[in-house]
Amino acid sequence: MGRPLVSAFLALSLDGFIAGPDGDLAWLDAYATDSIQETGYAGLMHRIDTLVMGRNTHEKLLSFDPWPYPERRVVVLTHRPFAARHGESAEAGPLGEVLHRLWQQGARHVYLDGGDVVRQGLADGLVDELTLSWVPVILGAGISLFGGLRHPSSWQAGDVRRLPSGLIQAVYRPYPPGAGHHAPGTAT
Amino acid sequence: MGRPLVSAFLALSLDGFIAGPDGDLAWLDAYATDSIQETGYAGLMHRIDTLVMGRNTHEKLLSFDPWPYPERRVVVLTHRPFAARHGESAEAGPLGEVLHRLWQQGARHVYLDGGDVVRQGLADGLVDELTLSWVPVILGAGISLFGGLRHPSSWQAGDVRRLPSGLIQAVYRPYPPGAGHHAPGTAT
Repeated sequence: MGRPLVSAFLALSLDGFIAGPDGDLAWLDAYATDSIQETGYAGLMHRIDTLVMGRNTHEKLLSFDPWPYPERRVVVLTHRPFAARHGESAEAGPLGEVLHRLWQQGARHVYLDGGDVVRQGLADGLVDELTLSWVPVILGAGISLFGGLRHPSSWQAGDVRRLPSGLIQAVYRPYPPGAGHHAPGTAT
Repeated sequence: MGRPLVSAFLALSLDGFIAGPDGDLAWLDAYATDSIQETGYAGLMHRIDTLVMGRNTHEKLLSFDPWPYPERRVVVLTHRPFAARHGESAEAGPLGEVLHRLWQQGARHVYLDGGDVVRQGLADGLVDELTLSWVPVILGAGISLFGGLRHPSSWQAGDVRRLPSGLIQAVYRPYPPGAGHHAPGTAT
């Protein structure tokens, strides 16, 4: 079943939290000094054609002015109808099936935006490129990126670097390559 | 209250586990291809004068032949008496107090050996140099290095590198430096 290449890109504490209790992100402020060019986020946004996100992430994005993704297709995973303000579309169902439908519609590189959808992608073996940026903080409590994942998975680290802010960033890909993952050129 | 410099050195999964369920370490085998020179462990063992470990770690070490630390003082944190086979001594009480006593007895650089004692050191703000080597595996379950730590702490990443095995290794020190930590030259 063909699907697009899938990337995720997250900052996390040394103890694996992407947000504090109640979704608090203030602890990240002191480290938000790298530009999106320096972190590689801008380059990733340039490469992808579609963003897939959960309802919560979408609602947060709606508060941004201007809308941050004017030139990208945005897909919101939700069963509830919503008024698209920027051309977003809604999809429901297992992430793998959604990705397959997006592939059929021409998507070739998807960015999973938000902890919930990334966790779902990891659980289902659907992440091809996982960029982790470790913030040098032990947070102690919060929303865990990996919490609830039950099945072990192996990865391979590509580039690793220390960002100017002090974050350690590494790009992981599934190992062995391609096992149960995106196969470029796979027929739909 | 003077105390020695305190180092810890651990491999952990991307999701923060230092061992699988029931202490399983087999998942590490595929990555145990770096020499102790390459990982920096040999260099650290050369720098320290004293090892502090919990009872469980000590019991595991006793199965090693030959004894791995013939030229280092080994201190076991335990309330129960035990027969020292290699000159180990027992200490009891809060880790900070044990470190202070060791300082008074001449210890200047301690290695905390084992997850329990490292976790205790982190909880009490007693770790000055934390070397983390991330194994490219999401384990899903096991013994968490950071589990149960309640208080946030800030660190600064020094050297970061990709080991030949694919582990990503970074050395962290408390930030801001010295806050509540080891003060070289502090009087006892």
